[in-house]
Amino acid sequence: MVYHLQRTAINRDDVVLGIGDDCALLSPPEGKVLAVSTDTLISGVHFPESTSAQDIGYKSLAVNLSDLAAMGAEPAWVSLAISLPEPDESWLYQFMLGFNQLVEQYNICLTGGDTTQGSLSVTINITGFVNAQKALRRSNAKTGDYIYVTGDIGDAGLGLKAILNNLPEAHDLSYCINRLNRPVPQIMAGKILSQFAVAAIDISDGLLADLNHICQASRVGAVLNVEQLPVSDTLLAYYKQKPDWLNVITAGDDYELCFTCSKIQSVEVEALMQQHEIKLTRIGEIVETKGVKCMLNGKLVDAGFKGYEHF
Amino acid sequence: MVYHLQRTAINRDDVVLGIGDDCALLSPPEGKVLAVSTDTLISGVHFPESTSAQDIGYKSLAVNLSDLAAMGAEPAWVSLAISLPEPDESWLYQFMLGFNQLVEQYNICLTGGDTTQGSLSVTINITGFVNAQKALRRSNAKTGDYIYVTGDIGDAGLGLKAILNNLPEAHDLSYCINRLNRPVPQIMAGKILSQFAVAAIDISDGLLADLNHICQASRVGAVLNVEQLPVSDTLLAYYKQKPDWLNVITAGDDYELCFTCSKIQSVEVEALMQQHEIKLTRIGEIVETKGVKCMLNGKLVDAGFKGYEHF
Repeated sequence: MVYHLQRTAINRDDVVLGIGDDCALLSPPEGKVLAVSTDTLISGVHFPESTSAQDIGYKSLAVNLSDLAAMGAEPAWVSLAISLPEPDESWLYQFMLGFNQLVEQYNICLTGGDTTQGSLSVTINITGFVNAQKALRRSNAKTGDYIYVTGDIGDAGLGLKAILNNLPEAHDLSYCINRLNRPVPQIMAGKILSQFAVAAIDISDGLLADLNHICQASRVGAVLNVEQLPVSDTLLAYYKQKPDWLNVITAGDDYELCFTCSKIQSVEVEALMQQHEIKLTRIGEIVETKGVKCMLNGKLVDAGFKGYEHF
Repeated sequence: MVYHLQRTAINRDDVVLGIGDDCALLSPPEGKVLAVSTDTLISGVHFPESTSAQDIGYKSLAVNLSDLAAMGAEPAWVSLAISLPEPDESWLYQFMLGFNQLVEQYNICLTGGDTTQGSLSVTINITGFVNAQKALRRSNAKTGDYIYVTGDIGDAGLGLKAILNNLPEAHDLSYCINRLNRPVPQIMAGKILSQFAVAAIDISDGLLADLNHICQASRVGAVLNVEQLPVSDTLLAYYKQKPDWLNVITAGDDYELCFTCSKIQSVEVEALMQQHEIKLTRIGEIVETKGVKCMLNGKLVDAGFKGYEHF
């Protein structure tokens, strides 16, 4: 099964030889390192089986771009491997429509592709450029740093719940379903942060788990002020102004950035984010004691996965 | 499903940050371009379902290395995405044993990995280094060039036939089955050829189809002298010294290199290959008239897929 993957007119000077030979030939930029990430999305695992081909195409690239954002890298090249149960030109056409929307937006070149017959899955390998010293490593967090998150969290999780449980409120939750299917990679926020070489991660597994990744890599802990977490009006309305905070901090797929920065840097970071109209919320502080502690209205709450009833 | 992929002790100076953050950070070499290839292998399509985990691990990387060989590139970095139907640590351990055999042999660094739950498939993205001017592009063939192939061809196809048809001779064909499961990427041959910037391709789809790819990219044709094709003693014995040539030229998976070079260069190329103990056979010539013509004992034969009875 060999398809011609619908390509855009994107040409980059650093692509010496594109798709069509045994390998692509790519000319890396001087003075920068390559930020490279691979992610597989499987139908029924990483997106509901009902997801449209166009949304799958968009989301597959978006979640990989989100990894670049979390390193502060500038997107450049992408390769795409798709498995489809049956040859289906129109599905693939729709997939590429969604995929190419981000290709065009970020001026990325598709440098390799493979289409095979198998159960529906998409594997993407993405490459971006970043200054080695300015990459946003998870290990950069330091005691006393503020913790921030871009945008709102919890929307994608609520959107997923609406789809999987066929909620009667699904119509009112279309905003959240769209957040699930069409996450916006925080490339610009990552670029801004790369001026400060702070610690960052994209929220794919849920805020709690991903903040914990930063803490472990940096050998620090965190105190999270749960009631400060930014949530959308749609989510607030669904929960009648009383969000299920455990859901909010454990739901994945929001692809916002969570990052830490020193109190001194925080003024400039906040100003730059505001200047670029990126919503930013301070949600806690890095501490010496390991682990992530969740505070709700001044009281410590147990956010362990078994601890739902404690919320 | 997240596994710890068993890694080797391979460290490379150009890997600034390895697995564990949102992206790996890789430092490209100066003065060279990156040769990048992506291939997916699906169980039951790219290898028989009975293939052992260790052979799948080996072969997945071997076929990707073969793409680098066909560009004359030096292997450097690899990322690995595996889907498995069920969590299976021992299967993965065996897979990585086979995979790591080539990782160690070629000093490659595993820079990214993703394990997901789904039907068995493996997607690899491999990166090597090559001088842009010396890359072995398919489009380099010129009228009058000699056509060569490394090693023997047809073995992997016969091995596959033995497995799929459960041939009674399967025991005698273990050599061919091994050639199917453990192809040797022709990295050294590719390196030698990169001194001459000739046209090359690795034989994955079959000699006829792959030589045709060279001809199309170079806008030339080829005359193939079928009786000169190099075949193994095992294959000769199976066919009682009268090979089924159509099978030989259409069977894939041998991962030998097919290349063209000028008559003037041919003397030096042959000498260098001999010096490195790489079996090399001249099998034809590039001509102006498009298409691949097959000659058998001086007579033109129809090698169209419908033309089996003409052989």
